[in-house]
Amino acid sequence: MTYVPVNREGLVDPGDIRRAIRPETVLITVMHANNELGTIQPLEEIGRIAAEADVYFHTDAVQSAGKVPIAVDRLGVDLLSISGHKLYAPKGVGALYIRKATRLKPLLFGGQHQRGHRPGTENVAGNVGLGKAAELARVSLTSDALRISALRDRLEEGILERVPQSRVNGSRTARTPNTTNILIPFVEGEALVIALDLRGVACSTGAACSSGAIEPSHVLTAIGLAPEEARASLRFSLGRHTTADDVDLALSVIPGVVEHLRELSPVYKKQAVAL
Amino acid sequence: MTYVPVNREGLVDPGDIRRAIRPETVLITVMHANNELGTIQPLEEIGRIAAEADVYFHTDAVQSAGKVPIAVDRLGVDLLSISGHKLYAPKGVGALYIRKATRLKPLLFGGQHQRGHRPGTENVAGNVGLGKAAELARVSLTSDALRISALRDRLEEGILERVPQSRVNGSRTARTPNTTNILIPFVEGEALVIALDLRGVACSTGAACSSGAIEPSHVLTAIGLAPEEARASLRFSLGRHTTADDVDLALSVIPGVVEHLRELSPVYKKQAVAL
Repeated sequence: MTYVPVNREGLVDPGDIRRAIRPETVLITVMHANNELGTIQPLEEIGRIAAEADVYFHTDAVQSAGKVPIAVDRLGVDLLSISGHKLYAPKGVGALYIRKATRLKPLLFGGQHQRGHRPGTENVAGNVGLGKAAELARVSLTSDALRISALRDRLEEGILERVPQSRVNGSRTARTPNTTNILIPFVEGEALVIALDLRGVACSTGAACSSGAIEPSHVLTAIGLAPEEARASLRFSLGRHTTADDVDLALSVIPGVVEHLRELSPVYKKQAVAL
Repeated sequence: MTYVPVNREGLVDPGDIRRAIRPETVLITVMHANNELGTIQPLEEIGRIAAEADVYFHTDAVQSAGKVPIAVDRLGVDLLSISGHKLYAPKGVGALYIRKATRLKPLLFGGQHQRGHRPGTENVAGNVGLGKAAELARVSLTSDALRISALRDRLEEGILERVPQSRVNGSRTARTPNTTNILIPFVEGEALVIALDLRGVACSTGAACSSGAIEPSHVLTAIGLAPEEARASLRFSLGRHTTADDVDLALSVIPGVVEHLRELSPVYKKQAVAL
């Protein structure tokens, strides 16, 4: 397995992928949108490289499905995975798109369900829910994206204006409409998350999969952040039910909480004096 | 892997299991109740053998959970699997009981959900449904078992009386309350299933997992049936919603349909003449 780096914006360079292909390479896999930054990778270019090299191309579209248009032919992917609860379907159900003639070996055995790919009686209610959620997402995709990205930008701009030295991590252009990841130097992210939670604002450091972990986010260190910067970064995710009032609440609460936590930081006080 | 045979009743001999244990044996796995016959295996004895030999003991209790009492300590199992839809929970959810200190390697990777055993956001609604279904099954276990086994016996006796040469496959004592598997010589089981379905009676040959397969049931051949006998065997499964009227309908329909199909069988006519 060869890992390919990302630049400071969080983007993979398709040229790096081309150069990493070896004669024995069977699969290229690249996330469509990153879960912590929202960064959207240049899949179309990578898809062309994969096709030229005759290597299967998989993308994890869990964060992008329902948020940006997805067309497997345009992206050039052979395999695409989505997860239900990220598009308002029930938890515990997902889907793998498999392009015709793609040969896969099953990981689990015992029955010939799902064309031999995965044994076991299927989660029928969940599957129907996923289908319906995808249908609904398709209908409201554009209007949701416009409304949510406007709210996200208002939140982001508001924080940048009100919190000195804060800045956005990752690309601000190649990005899903719902995510912003903001570095707020001289605070401990976990402390900030807890303090904001008590004031009714839910956000996170890193990914839910590793919440409680001490390690700084591998995504943020991969885009060049120092460990203390990664730990001082907050992710805000907006959704179909986020309102302008929610954003206003967050903006009214965040600056004070940040200021309070910074006052407890000896490093912050030292640099503030230096400034 | 060593496979241990069953006798004509469908029962495993615990002595065979003891003799099959080798120094490198890590697991004994025996179904609690068979899906085609309902036969209940002597798990307690096998559990003692497994404990003496210090070998993990797993049982597939998918067919028995909710139908007969299950106590993991009494059965002596370290691992026990159940499937939701077999006890009126939603489809697509199941559970694996793991005795404390049992060491398992995961088959799938990518997150630390479910104590590292299986990654992925859980099917919350399904899990709650399984818990509730188990609770309900526990409350009605005894009354369901008495009512359903009485109906099953009425169906079974009725078929044996009305259909010449028919007989029950497997044990009639060590058996779940809901299942009967009946050999009806000189008919093609698949034809009988279809003819009965048209008259409102649902039954099956073999297991649902292999419906449509041409091969005779490996369960029925394992208990000593010839391939043509296995193919002439029908499984009837009763459940919480089966009524006495359902049984009466089946008994009113089956003899005529069997007689009709037998008239088309040259083998049947030849032996009938011989009789």
